[in-house]
Amino acid sequence: MDFELNEDQRAFAEAAYQFAKEKLEPMAAEWDEKHVFPKEVLKQAGEMGFLSLYTPEAQGGLGLSRLDSSIVFEQLAMGCTSTTAFMTIHNMVTWMIASYANEEVKQAYCPKLVCGEWLGSYCLTEPNAGSDAASLATTANKQGDQYILNGSKTFISGAGDTDVLVVMARTQDSGAKGISAFVVPADTKGITYGRKEPKLGWNNQPTRAVTFENVSIPTTHLLGEEGQGFIFAMKGLDGGRINIATCSIGTAQQALNQATQYVQERRQFGKPLSQFQALQFKLADMTTELVAARQLVRLAASKLDKHSPDATAYCAMAKRFATDVGFKVCDQALQLYGGYGYIKEYPMERYFRDVRVHQILEGTNEIMRLIIARRLLTEGAELI
Amino acid sequence: MDFELNEDQRAFAEAAYQFAKEKLEPMAAEWDEKHVFPKEVLKQAGEMGFLSLYTPEAQGGLGLSRLDSSIVFEQLAMGCTSTTAFMTIHNMVTWMIASYANEEVKQAYCPKLVCGEWLGSYCLTEPNAGSDAASLATTANKQGDQYILNGSKTFISGAGDTDVLVVMARTQDSGAKGISAFVVPADTKGITYGRKEPKLGWNNQPTRAVTFENVSIPTTHLLGEEGQGFIFAMKGLDGGRINIATCSIGTAQQALNQATQYVQERRQFGKPLSQFQALQFKLADMTTELVAARQLVRLAASKLDKHSPDATAYCAMAKRFATDVGFKVCDQALQLYGGYGYIKEYPMERYFRDVRVHQILEGTNEIMRLIIARRLLTEGAELI
Amino acid sequence: MDFELNEDQRAFAEAAYQFAKEKLEPMAAEWDEKHVFPKEVLKQAGEMGFLSLYTPEAQGGLGLSRLDSSIVFEQLAMGCTSTTAFMTIHNMVTWMIASYANEEVKQAYCPKLVCGEWLGSYCLTEPNAGSDAASLATTANKQGDQYILNGSKTFISGAGDTDVLVVMARTQDSGAKGISAFVVPADTKGITYGRKEPKLGWNNQPTRAVTFENVSIPTTHLLGEEGQGFIFAMKGLDGGRINIATCSIGTAQQALNQATQYVQERRQFGKPLSQFQALQFKLADMTTELVAARQLVRLAASKLDKHSPDATAYCAMAKRFATDVGFKVCDQALQLYGGYGYIKEYPMERYFRDVRVHQILEGTNEIMRLIIARRLLTEGAELI
Amino acid sequence: MDFELNEDQRAFAEAAYQFAKEKLEPMAAEWDEKHVFPKEVLKQAGEMGFLSLYTPEAQGGLGLSRLDSSIVFEQLAMGCTSTTAFMTIHNMVTWMIASYANEEVKQAYCPKLVCGEWLGSYCLTEPNAGSDAASLATTANKQGDQYILNGSKTFISGAGDTDVLVVMARTQDSGAKGISAFVVPADTKGITYGRKEPKLGWNNQPTRAVTFENVSIPTTHLLGEEGQGFIFAMKGLDGGRINIATCSIGTAQQALNQATQYVQERRQFGKPLSQFQALQFKLADMTTELVAARQLVRLAASKLDKHSPDATAYCAMAKRFATDVGFKVCDQALQLYGGYGYIKEYPMERYFRDVRVHQILEGTNEIMRLIIARRLLTEGAELI
Repeated sequence: MDFELNEDQRAFAEAAYQFAKEKLEPMAAEWDEKHVFPKEVLKQAGEMGFLSLYTPEAQGGLGLSRLDSSIVFEQLAMGCTSTTAFMTIHNMVTWMIASYANEEVKQAYCPKLVCGEWLGSYCLTEPNAGSDAASLATTANKQGDQYILNGSKTFISGAGDTDVLVVMARTQDSGAKGISAFVVPADTKGITYGRKEPKLGWNNQPTRAVTFENVSIPTTHLLGEEGQGFIFAMKGLDGGRINIATCSIGTAQQALNQATQYVQERRQFGKPLSQFQALQFKLADMTTELVAARQLVRLAASKLDKHSPDATAYCAMAKRFATDVGFKVCDQALQLYGGYGYIKEYPMERYFRDVRVHQILEGTNEIMRLIIARRLLTEGAELI
Repeated sequence: MDFELNEDQRAFAEAAYQFAKEKLEPMAAEWDEKHVFPKEVLKQAGEMGFLSLYTPEAQGGLGLSRLDSSIVFEQLAMGCTSTTAFMTIHNMVTWMIASYANEEVKQAYCPKLVCGEWLGSYCLTEPNAGSDAASLATTANKQGDQYILNGSKTFISGAGDTDVLVVMARTQDSGAKGISAFVVPADTKGITYGRKEPKLGWNNQPTRAVTFENVSIPTTHLLGEEGQGFIFAMKGLDGGRINIATCSIGTAQQALNQATQYVQERRQFGKPLSQFQALQFKLADMTTELVAARQLVRLAASKLDKHSPDATAYCAMAKRFATDVGFKVCDQALQLYGGYGYIKEYPMERYFRDVRVHQILEGTNEIMRLIIARRLLTEGAELI
Repeated sequence: MDFELNEDQRAFAEAAYQFAKEKLEPMAAEWDEKHVFPKEVLKQAGEMGFLSLYTPEAQGGLGLSRLDSSIVFEQLAMGCTSTTAFMTIHNMVTWMIASYANEEVKQAYCPKLVCGEWLGSYCLTEPNAGSDAASLATTANKQGDQYILNGSKTFISGAGDTDVLVVMARTQDSGAKGISAFVVPADTKGITYGRKEPKLGWNNQPTRAVTFENVSIPTTHLLGEEGQGFIFAMKGLDGGRINIATCSIGTAQQALNQATQYVQERRQFGKPLSQFQALQFKLADMTTELVAARQLVRLAASKLDKHSPDATAYCAMAKRFATDVGFKVCDQALQLYGGYGYIKEYPMERYFRDVRVHQILEGTNEIMRLIIARRLLTEGAELI
Repeated sequence: MDFELNEDQRAFAEAAYQFAKEKLEPMAAEWDEKHVFPKEVLKQAGEMGFLSLYTPEAQGGLGLSRLDSSIVFEQLAMGCTSTTAFMTIHNMVTWMIASYANEEVKQAYCPKLVCGEWLGSYCLTEPNAGSDAASLATTANKQGDQYILNGSKTFISGAGDTDVLVVMARTQDSGAKGISAFVVPADTKGITYGRKEPKLGWNNQPTRAVTFENVSIPTTHLLGEEGQGFIFAMKGLDGGRINIATCSIGTAQQALNQATQYVQERRQFGKPLSQFQALQFKLADMTTELVAARQLVRLAASKLDKHSPDATAYCAMAKRFATDVGFKVCDQALQLYGGYGYIKEYPMERYFRDVRVHQILEGTNEIMRLIIARRLLTEGAELI
């Protein structure tokens, strides 16, 4: 057992920290305010390898483990939560294509996704199938050497501004085993995009509904085989949960850093806030829970890397705990800033808005509890 | 002991409910989005008496008790948190002038404040005296029959769009006893207003800094006597805490109403959300805490009405508890909406943003705890 | 709306406070340690009217409302949680007999129960029907002018040391409507009592299992009519929940009183604990939640008195909230005592043990949430 | 970074698990009830090496790291919280003597402590210096080749039944630097023991006050040098906090294991408790927090092993979080058992009582927050 970063991990973290500090943090408030999708900076992230962290090296990625990737994403999230969250989605899309597409599609898509020339969106969620992925209704009917897609997706990050969609659609009538995954060029005829959805946060990534009306794609664009879509989606979700949990950790660490400094500068009743014991206690609890959450995320990532049979339960635990703690820490950091926490001149309210969605995304935290309980009740608590 | 509304209270509540439903609720999202300060609707509120609920009848107010007023504000807050919160501030300003101004000033200001022709702002907070009101630095120097005001205020609700300011300023060098209160026309020479402060919520009331540079006002505009300002401020705060706590209660009740309906409509995994036991438990806890918070607010308001010696401690308890519960209920209602809670098409994220500031305003909830503890440690817990 | 105790309530409270202080508090530790069931003191409580607070005056009771009774029980619980909790059970038994027994039985039992010459136990819970009262299996078969009871009950307070049992048993095959209630002399042939159950707390009231083997009682001992037992039980539970919630409030207030004093005496790091801000905050939160809980209990009691259609939901809210808060306050008071909180020389650990069961009894707090949610989902949150 | 147990760790854990299962668990309830200090079983633990886990091999110990030791203690605590907690104290005493005593004393004491022939107590806490160790008042005056000890200690685990005391006493007037540590035979003339303190839990280890009245010990019994006592105490506390945190983790895991099984067996309303979603959620949260707490404890232990400069802060975080989570898990497991959780027939109420003191011991959890905050405010949150 060893809890320290190795040399490579420290180097990656340092590079990510610098990138976050120089490229993301200075722009994050403006991107949020003006709803800017920072394609140029994403391309620079691609050059650094941040868009293909765990994509196999054979496809141009860095081939890192999930644990390594989490260490990198955490640093990035300190600069901009929302941009980093988008990068994690793009990473998933790239990894999925690099892992499961046929050779020709891999060749065509991966180089451009890896460098950020193309950006990717992940089309799983549907209006009537939020956390209930298995019930999705979008169809993909095979006709000759084409699949014809019909249906609609909702809450799709990047949609309308990205180049590639990975789409989950039904090739058979019902159940999880009827779902297949497809690579779809974003500008294929028959795809229409809804209005940019106004949201509480995550404002620098556009969110739109996507409608497929007789969208025709070559059968070569199937990922893996028919019926494997749900398995890919579940694999994607395990990793996605680590990623989103990581974005909460990084943001919360940033909020904690700033709040710790702020309470030493801000004076009330003749002394710095930091000398009020009750605020010290609050900071101590924020720190403790954040450290615990980080460890849990790393443990879960490690289990995912080792294909441990309990990895899904651990990813669910990590996602539940880290996104709850992340929000709590940001909320309390905001409170420590008092009135200044509530105004946009300071970043606290942005952190607070941005991390809030992590408790909902990638399976709500309620769904996480179901997943954890399921394992507990089938395997017993001893195996946890 | 009797916990039921009397006939008058029911009638007032019903009128407020109708006003909220017809005039506030349909506009609240737009006002939030476009940062509209709804002066016209505030005037209509004035016609209903909502701008002078506890202003003495002699000055044209309804002369209601704090408890009655709370019952009214709660209904209004169900329609729009932020507008109602502004009304509570205007009520305080109007009450303070009606109670403590000299006769001439009363005659000149009250009729216009009561009907909403003029709107009022309350200028207490300063950049370096957030929760520490006694340390304020704005000065009022008497020169002949004028006071000359210098200094600056921050986070002033309505400032720049209102007509009358009640300003706390220092007529003696230091301490709470050196503070006096003044009625100041908002367009007096020497007053400048900062930029409209972008905020997390409360977007339909402009918040600005106010700077006083050799602002000259007649000595007749002093409220009460020199040195009474801090006492007025503290009185105002007790009531202000009831009011802001009430705004949290009303908003949370609205969020709970809607979430309760939503979970019965929204289906996942083949049944309405309302049939998932864990969500039922969540709703039950939201309800229980909300009911407890409402009772505590009403108890505190009643103590304020009776000038009970423990009223300040009870107002602090009510403010602390109700604003924490209010935020928690709105946060959980948002969560029950899942992804739909995060987008602006539904009002949950607005409730969540708007009530957040109540934990900070009128003395942060940390200050509330100090006030409660102080009484506890001087009077003993038996007297609570 | 009025939150103050009237003159009568103050007088009753004062009498109860004195009784608690003189008769209960000095003995409570010893009764706990030695598992003494204090029959003599219970008789003295009977003389004061504390054993028949809401029993109709016609049957010798004080005829108080539930709200009045709660005010009295709260004071008593400050002296001894467990003894007071037993008194509340005895009160329920006495009230049930006084309200629903036939005239002859009333005449025979009430005078002796009211004065405490006889004590009563309430036999509802069965080993396989903890919170699920409707599934009980004890049978009462009518044979001529007798009912023959068979079955077993568990966790019966006072059993083996009391004189009268009110027993819920099944007169028809299944469902809630097949349950009837009976008055049974505790020494009737065929009744056997299990061993005194060692427990975490509530040590001065014996808890035993009760087995009925062909126990024969006259048909005149039926309460009300056949099939009404479940209705009586539910009525009893509403009141029982107020009572047990009240016992938590009283105990917590006592713990808070003592802890508030203790922190002013105990010194660490050169000053009294009371000067540590974080501990002040803790005391403030304990107080706030306790006050909120008390109000909720009184509101629910008042609704019960008025037969309000939402009374059951409010009693459930009051029970859930007050017993959770009561435990939390006692737990934190123990913590404030540090090592001294953990030893039996101080009463904190007894309060902590005694109130813990209130979260389980009279329907667990999980069942309370179901009850609250049921009303919410049938009537809507607006009516709460 | 690696989160898996290595082969040795798995072997140690397995041995400890077996010992706990065979020697501790079957007896724990009886030891608790009858207040048995199980010297014989402690000797067997000594044979297994459990009394000298991190004592250097040169002195007969196993020479394990703190992390390894935590893995072992966790398994032992699953069998009996209180016995294991005593073992951790004995381990600390043995380690301290083995590390800092002069050679002769080492030779005389270590072999007997390692095998459990002698048992050790640790005498730090005083009546007026609970969490404030630096203020202790016991004196050790050097007179020739003797130190004369005077003063009194309180809450000393094992005292009166153990053979060796490590005593912190003052060799200079004031401050932390005046404290020295001594090895004292428990039966030295002038030592008297108070009555066995009745406690909420930890009943199988006697707790007594210890009074030193002109107790004379050879100067060779000084540990290290004069004035080093506080440093040893602080070192001891870091490790002690890991240990006590570990005892909470092990107990909570045991409670969780049993509760998970119980809810699958216990039926209510026609189905096992495990099918009620709200209870599933509760189990999921208990598990998640427990897993997070375990990781935090292991991380802190690892930092202690590496003499990381932030080790003290991490040990404080681990102690605070793991003992709070441990109690919460035990409390909720008790609740899942309903009425059966409250009676002594089931072990839940014992777990609940035993772990409660961990939030107080080895520095209260309030002191932990101070320690964490101190580091945060001197080093900044970035270094956490």
